[in-house]
Amino acid sequence: MTDIVRADGRATDQLREITIERGWSANAEGSALISFGGTKVLCTASFTNGVPRWLTGKGKGWVTAEYAMLPRATNSRNDRESVKGRIGGRTHEISRLIGRALRAVVDTKALGENTIVIDCDVLQADGGTRTAAITGAYVALADAIEWGREKKFIGKNATPLLDSVAAISVGIIDGTPMLDLPYVEDVRAETDMNIVVTGRGLFVEVQGTAEGAPFDKRELDALLELGLAGCETLKGHQLEALAPSEAQA
Amino acid sequence: MTDIVRADGRATDQLREITIERGWSANAEGSALISFGGTKVLCTASFTNGVPRWLTGKGKGWVTAEYAMLPRATNSRNDRESVKGRIGGRTHEISRLIGRALRAVVDTKALGENTIVIDCDVLQADGGTRTAAITGAYVALADAIEWGREKKFIGKNATPLLDSVAAISVGIIDGTPMLDLPYVEDVRAETDMNIVVTGRGLFVEVQGTAEGAPFDKRELDALLELGLAGCETLKGHQLEALAPSEAQA
Amino acid sequence: MTDIVRADGRATDQLREITIERGWSANAEGSALISFGGTKVLCTASFTNGVPRWLTGKGKGWVTAEYAMLPRATNSRNDRESVKGRIGGRTHEISRLIGRALRAVVDTKALGENTIVIDCDVLQADGGTRTAAITGAYVALADAIEWGREKKFIGKNATPLLDSVAAISVGIIDGTPMLDLPYVEDVRAETDMNIVVTGRGLFVEVQGTAEGAPFDKRELDALLELGLAGCETLKGHQLEALAPSEAQA
Amino acid sequence: MTDIVRADGRATDQLREITIERGWSANAEGSALISFGGTKVLCTASFTNGVPRWLTGKGKGWVTAEYAMLPRATNSRNDRESVKGRIGGRTHEISRLIGRALRAVVDTKALGENTIVIDCDVLQADGGTRTAAITGAYVALADAIEWGREKKFIGKNATPLLDSVAAISVGIIDGTPMLDLPYVEDVRAETDMNIVVTGRGLFVEVQGTAEGAPFDKRELDALLELGLAGCETLKGHQLEALAPSEAQA
Amino acid sequence: MTDIVRADGRATDQLREITIERGWSANAEGSALISFGGTKVLCTASFTNGVPRWLTGKGKGWVTAEYAMLPRATNSRNDRESVKGRIGGRTHEISRLIGRALRAVVDTKALGENTIVIDCDVLQADGGTRTAAITGAYVALADAIEWGREKKFIGKNATPLLDSVAAISVGIIDGTPMLDLPYVEDVRAETDMNIVVTGRGLFVEVQGTAEGAPFDKRELDALLELGLAGCETLKGHQLEALAPSEAQA
Amino acid sequence: MTDIVRADGRATDQLREITIERGWSANAEGSALISFGGTKVLCTASFTNGVPRWLTGKGKGWVTAEYAMLPRATNSRNDRESVKGRIGGRTHEISRLIGRALRAVVDTKALGENTIVIDCDVLQADGGTRTAAITGAYVALADAIEWGREKKFIGKNATPLLDSVAAISVGIIDGTPMLDLPYVEDVRAETDMNIVVTGRGLFVEVQGTAEGAPFDKRELDALLELGLAGCETLKGHQLEALAPSEAQA
Repeated sequence: MTDIVRADGRATDQLREITIERGWSANAEGSALISFGGTKVLCTASFTNGVPRWLTGKGKGWVTAEYAMLPRATNSRNDRESVKGRIGGRTHEISRLIGRALRAVVDTKALGENTIVIDCDVLQADGGTRTAAITGAYVALADAIEWGREKKFIGKNATPLLDSVAAISVGIIDGTPMLDLPYVEDVRAETDMNIVVTGRGLFVEVQGTAEGAPFDKRELDALLELGLAGCETLKGHQLEALAPSEAQA
Repeated sequence: MTDIVRADGRATDQLREITIERGWSANAEGSALISFGGTKVLCTASFTNGVPRWLTGKGKGWVTAEYAMLPRATNSRNDRESVKGRIGGRTHEISRLIGRALRAVVDTKALGENTIVIDCDVLQADGGTRTAAITGAYVALADAIEWGREKKFIGKNATPLLDSVAAISVGIIDGTPMLDLPYVEDVRAETDMNIVVTGRGLFVEVQGTAEGAPFDKRELDALLELGLAGCETLKGHQLEALAPSEAQA
Repeated sequence: MTDIVRADGRATDQLREITIERGWSANAEGSALISFGGTKVLCTASFTNGVPRWLTGKGKGWVTAEYAMLPRATNSRNDRESVKGRIGGRTHEISRLIGRALRAVVDTKALGENTIVIDCDVLQADGGTRTAAITGAYVALADAIEWGREKKFIGKNATPLLDSVAAISVGIIDGTPMLDLPYVEDVRAETDMNIVVTGRGLFVEVQGTAEGAPFDKRELDALLELGLAGCETLKGHQLEALAPSEAQA
Repeated sequence: MTDIVRADGRATDQLREITIERGWSANAEGSALISFGGTKVLCTASFTNGVPRWLTGKGKGWVTAEYAMLPRATNSRNDRESVKGRIGGRTHEISRLIGRALRAVVDTKALGENTIVIDCDVLQADGGTRTAAITGAYVALADAIEWGREKKFIGKNATPLLDSVAAISVGIIDGTPMLDLPYVEDVRAETDMNIVVTGRGLFVEVQGTAEGAPFDKRELDALLELGLAGCETLKGHQLEALAPSEAQA
Repeated sequence: MTDIVRADGRATDQLREITIERGWSANAEGSALISFGGTKVLCTASFTNGVPRWLTGKGKGWVTAEYAMLPRATNSRNDRESVKGRIGGRTHEISRLIGRALRAVVDTKALGENTIVIDCDVLQADGGTRTAAITGAYVALADAIEWGREKKFIGKNATPLLDSVAAISVGIIDGTPMLDLPYVEDVRAETDMNIVVTGRGLFVEVQGTAEGAPFDKRELDALLELGLAGCETLKGHQLEALAPSEAQA
Repeated sequence: MTDIVRADGRATDQLREITIERGWSANAEGSALISFGGTKVLCTASFTNGVPRWLTGKGKGWVTAEYAMLPRATNSRNDRESVKGRIGGRTHEISRLIGRALRAVVDTKALGENTIVIDCDVLQADGGTRTAAITGAYVALADAIEWGREKKFIGKNATPLLDSVAAISVGIIDGTPMLDLPYVEDVRAETDMNIVVTGRGLFVEVQGTAEGAPFDKRELDALLELGLAGCETLKGHQLEALAPSEAQA
């Protein structure tokens, strides 16, 4: 893309090191400890037969997500939201985003009257926590659906998963579009965008914000292109993690 | 755009009836009662000399926003968030969006150590409440800044407002991109997008979500084009409302 | 009463300008935007077929009210109670007062197992917000009951409304009893009283408080006389607003 | 007044048995365990040198009150407000009433920059808890002021207490005005009134509510007369409790 | 034990003056006002036929407890937990301790599907409030069970109470083990222990904490011996309070 | 001890597999991911120069702890305490226990006016989470103190750590005392005890509870002996983790 080399030595269109430890949790029906460089998120999927009261009897399932950060995931400690007694706006917003991203690739009719709650807890934060969370959550979700099928809560021929889904951050720094921003880049970005993309390369969510100067259509297009390529790479990591040879505990 | 005529008789690229009652509130330093068709939002701007503790001594001002809905703004009554004792995720998310949108056109150095809080209270809701809120909030903000200048809290030659800002919703319904969705269209939209645009036509925020099927780049482009045109029209309404002849107490 | 002329030019026994915009809200089953001078309260009535669990099966309906103030209704901004996470004592107290006032003129047996919630949101405050709220709430209530009758939730011959109800503030300022106090008078009043009176001129509620010196029986009698006359005038405004010629959506 | 004899054998204008145990608490600067028949309220006064921040430097003191009920004070158990995480409307309303009643007889300038918090905790409830609380709170307040004088926080010649204050409930039952209602009468009362009266016989607060049929001026006058006489008797009990021979712990 | 005489004149192995006023509350099914010297706790037992939802249909009853302190029970006033909107860690911890202590002597099958809630409210605090609460709670519990038997909610031959239970604090002060610490000793104790013991002399709970230097096995043994003897004496007070001649209101 | 072999093959006096990953977190001043078999707790220590306001100017530091569990750490998902808006009694109780345990081995004068907050977040739970938390917290604390010394916030010759500290659970199952109970044993234990022991083998905390039948002195002694030996072994693991060869970033 450009000859610019970033502080961590990456090219502008290069992801950080991505690792996915599938089945990290012995207790959850699906789980993954995902890292995007220094960002580490534990994603667990909890499968329950049945749906919330408001959905009962409609023959549909429900998928939702909750995002949170450990108090010392970041460089300086933040008070716990449980201690403050209320959840902050940012936490709410990201939880809602993750839930929408996952529901976009789930056929809730095929899921049947089952509920899957995905918890994404950031153990260590270095930028891009919401995109790592979505990417890891998909892996946990896929395993939880498989679990439900084995337990016969989901029909043998039902295919609740319509596609895979991944997410990445992109941003403009000193005029240059860059992929997968760590914290030091994130705070300097003029424009910050998170995109959520399906395995087939379609958009589920596009959220771009001018942190500094407003941006134009040309910049928007450059960011989208970078992000689509990044999500394609993430899809590869997800497929590899979910490959049968790495069978889960 | 197309020959499709909507339930309310509008063309696909046509805004609903827009009205802005500038100076609706006798008490606030700036205010506007804005309506986008059946959506009515009261925007008030409260100017305070001084800034929050964490910003003290940096020679910068602060602009923030709070969004809320009256319990019976909608078709059926919702419990008050004050009664529930907590603010919902949607409320938080929209409040944060409005604040970011306004700050994008404010030079906080030029504002000086002053704080402006914009309250956007939805009195009646029929889709697009966040976009009406941003569009009306700009009018209230402009008047509050003018008030601060008259009271000498802001320097005579300072220009805290860098540009105007407006917002509109767009969506794809039955495959057709449409502008400014009322509630009945909003619930049917496959893709729903809110865009925030400056007076110069640059993006401040682009938030697109696939409510149904994921969308591709071509659809995204069509929505952005529609939205840019809509915001250009809204800018006209804002300018008219703020024109000196309609000067207010 | 006396020759004293008040700051706003009124006689001591004169109400401020009263306006009632019946049917202000397109969504509620009954509504009124009422103003007592600079005090503006939006009253909406939400009709629901059915009653709370604790009242089920007793053949009776339920009427309740919630009062709140927009953050910038007053001269300086107050934090939202939803943000503080708790409702203040004053808000609770006024909500309870409005509910009692309305229930005093409702035959809950005739209402049948239906619930009406009246929301009174102060859009602009200049003293007497609770009395304006009660007076406007009656209009919204009357329309909601009419709506329930049209929808056959209330029997054709049932008469749930036993009487009308209105409320006004009175106070002693510099030794002189005065009617309908705006904010500037309210803060100076030695004694402050709110009275709630039915259309037939009977008391529903009498709440008098010595803000300065305690008061004697003679002063109490003077205040009650003023208030009764004021409520009689308010009844006229309510009847006019509810007159068939001003038929509502 | 009438020949009617009540369930507990009292005449219509007779108080229940009143006892005041002054100095019940070894820790508080002033305290009283007061009973009106089966209603028992522990009132403690906490004296602090200094005032809340908002009052600092004005040379004035502050008196405030908090009312609460033990969970099993009543016939069936109520959940604790601490467990529910919020204070109910009734609790707030009564706390505010007690505070106003006490401040009406305090010269805050003479009190100096000192704060007195009165806690009124209902240990057993049988109607009239707020009136017992006010009556007992006065005794605790008087002792706390005396304590402040001894500790030289209050000037030797200052007289912060302008008068005494007491309160009683009155109501109309089966058409008959009655004094000091126990729970069984309270629930049957058509009109319920609490009055707060100074030692000199002036009104501090008059709160009358039609629980059943609205009431007229004649009934109101009868209730006020009954209540004034009852408060005069309560004043005697207060004076006796505070008499020097009953010196406090 | 030693020749040491304490500030209040007691021997190191001597309890403070213990009084138990059984049946203090006219409303509760069982109650006791217990005092350990200056510590006074009102214990009330509320009997309800039926159990919480999660226990329904298992043929077992439920016993639970809530502990709280009046704001001015202590030497300086503490804010109410209801006002703070949350219950503190200490309150939670003691409530749970009391509940466990009581359940240890209850046969929930014999209790049948009935619930007993014990409220322990500290009216005055001078150390050892949790141990006084447990000791008094047993008396209230015993009477509530007797009430349930009389009302036929509990079978005639069922014996839900397996044993009695009492509790006492012990501690090491200046190297000397002492029984039943008042506040002045409690704050100086190097090691602080609360023990809960059944009538048969078996341990239900042992909670020892090194407030200063850690302690060894020999010191632990000395404290346990002291505490066992103290609980034996408390059992005598409980039996005396519950003796038939002191029949309850 | 006995010939009994447990479900997981251990002897009754044998710990589960213990691992301590020192320095797991890149951001905290000290950290350890500790596991006791299937129980995994992430302990991070946050060092701040300065102390809370109430301790300012006393020349002493402060050490405190917060414990929490991820929602799906356990076999079935628990609602987040941040979502419930309040911290449960168990969480409070364990946080307080960990804080006391650590403070028992810290000389706060030697620590100087510095604050260390230890967060113990249970990532996976299989019994004994509080004891694993204390044991791991000590390692994080030791590294944070070393960090403070390197940054010169702590004097070169100061020795804030007086000793090490570890904790273990013991219990009686089917009459047999056993060490380090996993979840399946914990729920079956008649008596459950947690003990906290310093490196020198002294008790900091002893908390024994009869979950089933009350226990006698002989059983208590057997449990204490088992626990002391277990803590001695844990000390070995702590020393090994902190050995210089495993030096940390």
